[in-house]
Amino acid sequence: MIANRMKDYVKGSSVIRAMFEEGKIMAEKYGKENVYDFSLGNPNVQAPCEVNNAIKEIVEEENSVFLHGYMNNSGYEDVRKTIADSINKKFDTSFNETNIVMTVGAAGGLNVVLKTLLDPMDEVIVFAPYFGEYRSYVSNYDGKIVEVEPDLLTFQLNLADFEAKITNKTKAVIINNPNNPTGVIYSEETIKALSDILNKKSKELGIDIYLIADEPYRELAYDGEEVVYLTKYYDNTIVGYSYSKSLSLPGERIGYLVLPDELSDSDDIKAAANVATRILGFVNAPSLMQRVIAKCIDAKVNVEVYDKNRKLLYDSLVSYGFTCVKPQGAFYLFMKTPCEEMEFVNEAKKHHILLVPGSSFGCKGYVRIAYCVSYETIEGSLNGFMELAKKYGLS
Amino acid sequence: MIANRMKDYVKGSSVIRAMFEEGKIMAEKYGKENVYDFSLGNPNVQAPCEVNNAIKEIVEEENSVFLHGYMNNSGYEDVRKTIADSINKKFDTSFNETNIVMTVGAAGGLNVVLKTLLDPMDEVIVFAPYFGEYRSYVSNYDGKIVEVEPDLLTFQLNLADFEAKITNKTKAVIINNPNNPTGVIYSEETIKALSDILNKKSKELGIDIYLIADEPYRELAYDGEEVVYLTKYYDNTIVGYSYSKSLSLPGERIGYLVLPDELSDSDDIKAAANVATRILGFVNAPSLMQRVIAKCIDAKVNVEVYDKNRKLLYDSLVSYGFTCVKPQGAFYLFMKTPCEEMEFVNEAKKHHILLVPGSSFGCKGYVRIAYCVSYETIEGSLNGFMELAKKYGLS
Repeated sequence: MIANRMKDYVKGSSVIRAMFEEGKIMAEKYGKENVYDFSLGNPNVQAPCEVNNAIKEIVEEENSVFLHGYMNNSGYEDVRKTIADSINKKFDTSFNETNIVMTVGAAGGLNVVLKTLLDPMDEVIVFAPYFGEYRSYVSNYDGKIVEVEPDLLTFQLNLADFEAKITNKTKAVIINNPNNPTGVIYSEETIKALSDILNKKSKELGIDIYLIADEPYRELAYDGEEVVYLTKYYDNTIVGYSYSKSLSLPGERIGYLVLPDELSDSDDIKAAANVATRILGFVNAPSLMQRVIAKCIDAKVNVEVYDKNRKLLYDSLVSYGFTCVKPQGAFYLFMKTPCEEMEFVNEAKKHHILLVPGSSFGCKGYVRIAYCVSYETIEGSLNGFMELAKKYGLS
Repeated sequence: MIANRMKDYVKGSSVIRAMFEEGKIMAEKYGKENVYDFSLGNPNVQAPCEVNNAIKEIVEEENSVFLHGYMNNSGYEDVRKTIADSINKKFDTSFNETNIVMTVGAAGGLNVVLKTLLDPMDEVIVFAPYFGEYRSYVSNYDGKIVEVEPDLLTFQLNLADFEAKITNKTKAVIINNPNNPTGVIYSEETIKALSDILNKKSKELGIDIYLIADEPYRELAYDGEEVVYLTKYYDNTIVGYSYSKSLSLPGERIGYLVLPDELSDSDDIKAAANVATRILGFVNAPSLMQRVIAKCIDAKVNVEVYDKNRKLLYDSLVSYGFTCVKPQGAFYLFMKTPCEEMEFVNEAKKHHILLVPGSSFGCKGYVRIAYCVSYETIEGSLNGFMELAKKYGLS
């Protein structure tokens, strides 16, 4: 018999993953080219060639015992130093290797942070719409998730509702910038206002509130939009990063945490994150991939491909009469459904279009469209979207 | 402020890891060749050449989007099929890909199993001496660890005490074969007796008791000793395996779970293990390494190197008058200390010998010596061990 609390997890298991599996079955049935699977954030852009070259070079050059062996649970020191230097260069910060913990992707990093911080019933605030996995990550450590209502006009942060929801049990706040599922980038103005509220309420309540910046989409920003670096705005900021999207390596599970010296109880947090990495069973981020990252520190996927997809998809959907905020980053588009969302998801399936319902992200009445697919997939899907628009009288 | 429960973890943090870090500092101070660091199970034997060749070939041959991308959270189906076939061939079992979940090493696998099975206060029985990390893994899911007293004569399983400690709260039993820290391999006779007790008590109490076989050292067996495959003896067996030692890839974090169809609630357990892999933040075992494993399915490290170390170390220590059971597997030797164990650990440090106290493994009055080091390290340490024997009047 499985654990009682696992039963709920299994029952409410990821709609996104279920769609991904359904997409594979549909592809077998109808042919891959006739299924428009927008369900999963699985990048279709190749990793930059530097990655595979680095893998081959490192395997040739490094001693195998060192390369595939254990290191400090927080990761190779030289790799962490390289990453700290790179962040400093880009954002004019002053981190060193002690501020970096290598993680098993951003998901691993978030679990390490939450294990480090949360006591039972501690509250973690998230801004709807948000990545649904946060619910499980917080629940893993018996925390309580508190949702801030979405700002349906702009999908920027609803700061009034945020301020109202901070209590003396608030331990952390997660923001995901650029945002999954909306593709919105939070403006510097929004971030400053967020920081002001955090500083004010921390002082007022006499508590530390940690801001967790989940930033796997940082490098995917379009139209010259800037994604501000949060540690520069609020001292109690922890950054979680992943190379899943920036280098198209989601399966390799490689990322890092930034734990600044400015954090309240910074030394304790660093020590606890190191221990959490070990006892949660990660032990360390995959060793070869750590070294690959250090060797490819300036590499980046070809963001143009996603940008081209974004333009075609957004312009087409809007021209058909659909309503959506224009994504500025990541590779998601969050579209209002002209009917109840599951009805729309099921209607779309008839056109072999796979979408994820907004309620997975704490925001009903929408669908998420992950456009990290081929241009041809988007082109192929457009007729179906047009038919859907017609069916619901949008055009 | 970090979580209250993390404070205890940090305070009681791994003695083994602390030694590993101390060893690196001592190596800088006295020169690497003058420090005899027996603290960590970090293999010194190179991965077989098949591994690095496979990495290079796969990177050349596979499509990068597929190779580094997401797959089912349980792992690539073809990789799981290859592993199932290989187990079947070796042990005359009949597993298929649905019985295998790829994991982030054995530590990741154990966390997935315990997340899957444990409700708060469920009891997990371990046999002292045991790998101390089990305490954290069980505690991660609010389980309660129950220690069976060691059999100090043979270090086989103390089955009388085991039977006495099974209650209606017993959810799982972990055995580690070959054993860390003793190097003992449990005989077929012991395993049969263990299974008989488990079957009897399950029936008597009307509960399912899952046997978790933690087997990262399976391939490291000496003198032709056989390590029996537990699923053939007890239906409710889950196997956790890792390539950390068998292919010398501890840093790469790659292993798997075997979830047989014979398990009580097998389908639920498979589904929950898949979900647990995702929500604990592993998401999936590292993708490139999954494919490497499939390509190197019959490769194995050169066990001769460890065997040579074992003989030199065991024969020498016994000749100096120390008491220890002869290791039959793994790369650990568990030695009785002629005085209070921490005194011995500290005396050994004066000879630049780093050992881990037995209490880390739930068995006071002993030290663990990890002999996965160079032959020269063992040779270099012998004078120190001899001096220690003299000091305590053993020879």
